[in-house]
Amino acid sequence: MTATPELLYLLSGDPVEFSQVVAGMQPADVAEAIRDLTPAAAARVLAALPFDLAVQVLDDPELEHRTAILQQVDVAAAVPLIDAMSSDQQAELFRELPEAERERFLPALARHTREGLELLLRYPPESAGGIMTTEVLTVPATWTVEQALQLVRRVGGAKETVYAIYVIDPDSKRLRHVVSLRELVLSDRNQPVTEVGTTRKVLTVGPYTDREDVARLISKYDLLAVPVVDKEQRILGIVTVDDVIDALVTELTEDVQKLGGMEALDEPYLEISIPRMLRKRAGWLAALFIGEMLTATAMGHFEGEISRAVVLALFVPLIISSGGNSGSQATSLVIRAMALREVGLRDWWRVAVRELPSGFALGAFLGVIGAARILLWQAVGWYDYGLHYGLVAMTVALALVGVVTFGSLAGSMLPFVLRRLGFDPASASAPFVATLVDVTGLVIYFTVALALLRGTLL
Amino acid sequence: MTATPELLYLLSGDPVEFSQVVAGMQPADVAEAIRDLTPAAAARVLAALPFDLAVQVLDDPELEHRTAILQQVDVAAAVPLIDAMSSDQQAELFRELPEAERERFLPALARHTREGLELLLRYPPESAGGIMTTEVLTVPATWTVEQALQLVRRVGGAKETVYAIYVIDPDSKRLRHVVSLRELVLSDRNQPVTEVGTTRKVLTVGPYTDREDVARLISKYDLLAVPVVDKEQRILGIVTVDDVIDALVTELTEDVQKLGGMEALDEPYLEISIPRMLRKRAGWLAALFIGEMLTATAMGHFEGEISRAVVLALFVPLIISSGGNSGSQATSLVIRAMALREVGLRDWWRVAVRELPSGFALGAFLGVIGAARILLWQAVGWYDYGLHYGLVAMTVALALVGVVTFGSLAGSMLPFVLRRLGFDPASASAPFVATLVDVTGLVIYFTVALALLRGTLL
Repeated sequence: MTATPELLYLLSGDPVEFSQVVAGMQPADVAEAIRDLTPAAAARVLAALPFDLAVQVLDDPELEHRTAILQQVDVAAAVPLIDAMSSDQQAELFRELPEAERERFLPALARHTREGLELLLRYPPESAGGIMTTEVLTVPATWTVEQALQLVRRVGGAKETVYAIYVIDPDSKRLRHVVSLRELVLSDRNQPVTEVGTTRKVLTVGPYTDREDVARLISKYDLLAVPVVDKEQRILGIVTVDDVIDALVTELTEDVQKLGGMEALDEPYLEISIPRMLRKRAGWLAALFIGEMLTATAMGHFEGEISRAVVLALFVPLIISSGGNSGSQATSLVIRAMALREVGLRDWWRVAVRELPSGFALGAFLGVIGAARILLWQAVGWYDYGLHYGLVAMTVALALVGVVTFGSLAGSMLPFVLRRLGFDPASASAPFVATLVDVTGLVIYFTVALALLRGTLL
Repeated sequence: MTATPELLYLLSGDPVEFSQVVAGMQPADVAEAIRDLTPAAAARVLAALPFDLAVQVLDDPELEHRTAILQQVDVAAAVPLIDAMSSDQQAELFRELPEAERERFLPALARHTREGLELLLRYPPESAGGIMTTEVLTVPATWTVEQALQLVRRVGGAKETVYAIYVIDPDSKRLRHVVSLRELVLSDRNQPVTEVGTTRKVLTVGPYTDREDVARLISKYDLLAVPVVDKEQRILGIVTVDDVIDALVTELTEDVQKLGGMEALDEPYLEISIPRMLRKRAGWLAALFIGEMLTATAMGHFEGEISRAVVLALFVPLIISSGGNSGSQATSLVIRAMALREVGLRDWWRVAVRELPSGFALGAFLGVIGAARILLWQAVGWYDYGLHYGLVAMTVALALVGVVTFGSLAGSMLPFVLRRLGFDPASASAPFVATLVDVTGLVIYFTVALALLRGTLL
């Protein structure tokens, strides 16, 4: 896929041939090709591209070092490119620019670019206001279809999306109606725009709506864009479906990494420097390690029992890992159900009522397997668990019931606790749950052992 | 959000009032509202809805029991609804219908519906061919913009998306070009359609392309739809952006559940029956348990060492869990990098070269914390690790270096092995990695102990 060497080679040769090859490429492919170049080399390629293509390449959010590239371009050449970018990408660019660079570019930009940037940078980058584009086609409610179509023809080339045209009240500027380009094309030219399309209320979001909720809305109602409005229902911008796909892909990556028990990387795995990656991993790893140290303390409490019945120690890893595994299943189910809004904070009780019998059943299932393993090994003579092997098997089985039930319950409740405390429930990673359940698992195991084996092994 | 009780109440009252309320609702909201009704009650509501709205409600993939609902409607009433649904949703419906029901509906359906179904059902449900819609606007390459716009006006209302118009060779029917509705509207009416829009090659997929790869293409190039073509470049259908969003959301759910160490549920958590859920969980749990039984075997080998130095048993959970945690981090990083196509099968070596020093550094970091914990507890007098506490601390520290290095390496390589064997790399869940690493972790720990403590404790 990587066209990088060719691009540089072409650039050093015939300029006509270069522009011919590049004109046939998709902007996303050009962006991918120059992603591996140094900022200086990428800036040279960018300068050689036709203006429109250069803008589209810069508009691609996957061109991760575009900030560095633009710093290699002088202000006079960079400003028209930035002015022509879509407003949401301008905002993302400026969020990444160092303060000094912002100062260098800002005064030279067109007034409407500066105003758009001021608006967008006011909102958090993960909110609807932070990812919206301010290029919106609005028409007054007094217009006809013909007037609206003429406006589309006049300005359509410059707007990111013209598939939705927003109809606003001419006086209050409130959003009243939305028509799609398709509905306009299909309608009688002399009809008022307000009579075209559905009579349903327009779906809107506020500027502080979380981008994941915007994604959910667009996905649920199959929209191409959703308008962002202020408290007076005046339109601030729109979030388009491609922004939402980007948000979903980012969310997926972050969730998978969090579930693996670490901070999200925010850089491709093979590109992030090893020290940066270690910092993202070491924090959680150390936290889990310190939590897990409690197992040494718990084991210490039972050192006497272990020295009297070493056979008990053999099953420690088996039993605590079963608690961790069942907890990890329960946690991932609840995290996902929460993300899909199938389960809310108030549903914790309904979840607990499902997990308690489920954990018990799963624990009993594993308990039977575990006891059978011990009895079989003893009968065949593969291992000698001592005189009281029957009691040992029963201890392991009952401990498994207790540990798996507790693991399922604790794992399913942890996301609720995290969310109630204001954390992301996806932080309830499998390692986190396992650590939590390990200590309790040990206590359950040795307590069962004390009850069953007192007077025989203990 | 649930309007269910009101809907039923309204239905039993004034029909005019019912249709007024419902006409103001989004189809997705009606679908959500009748999702909790019995199929019979839902069928009653459906029958009372205006025809167009009923079709849109049935078209919503989130109306999960629509198959059951349609079985409550008699054929004469159901057939026009099915005929009017979009072809990808017709296919999904028919995939779920029992054989006998298919036979009941099929002969009554319109011919073009039957032909479309035959085409779509030929492809796997997770392929481009399985999720595409066959409603495509094609025009011959000899047409002008005006002719194309007239076609849009004539048939636009019935097609799922008219935002892309595909230009085909009039003789060979090969796909030659694509123009957007926006480009048509912005162009001179007398221009040939072939001269409108970009000159780039049209991006296409084959019918057997995986839907996740389709999603990646649409997301990368910010498309509203991608055409599905056969080997002769003839267009079979299109996959639209909203199908892709649905595919992404499903993928996210499946990945999270697999990472939690279980089969994907394919039903909402609170709705799936407990026995069905237990079956999805018990399989993996039992497999992990049986794998983890090897820890009991491994521990059995070192029973003599444990009975001589019970202090060693205290750190077993701490050490093996650290291996599992570092392995789970490495696994989730690699799974995600693979899904984003940042890492391919051939990159296993580049990953190993990163994970080896990373694991070593993380292990050394945890080793220092672990040794410090032992020395501190001994110094303060919180626990007595015996005469050779210094050697015990060193054993724990060195074992941690070995276990965490091994965990990181094994965790990062597991997704490669799974993918090479033809499995989904996302099956390399944290519990799976932990189980794999636990046995090796025990062997590493006791081997280090034997080397360091022989002649003193052992």
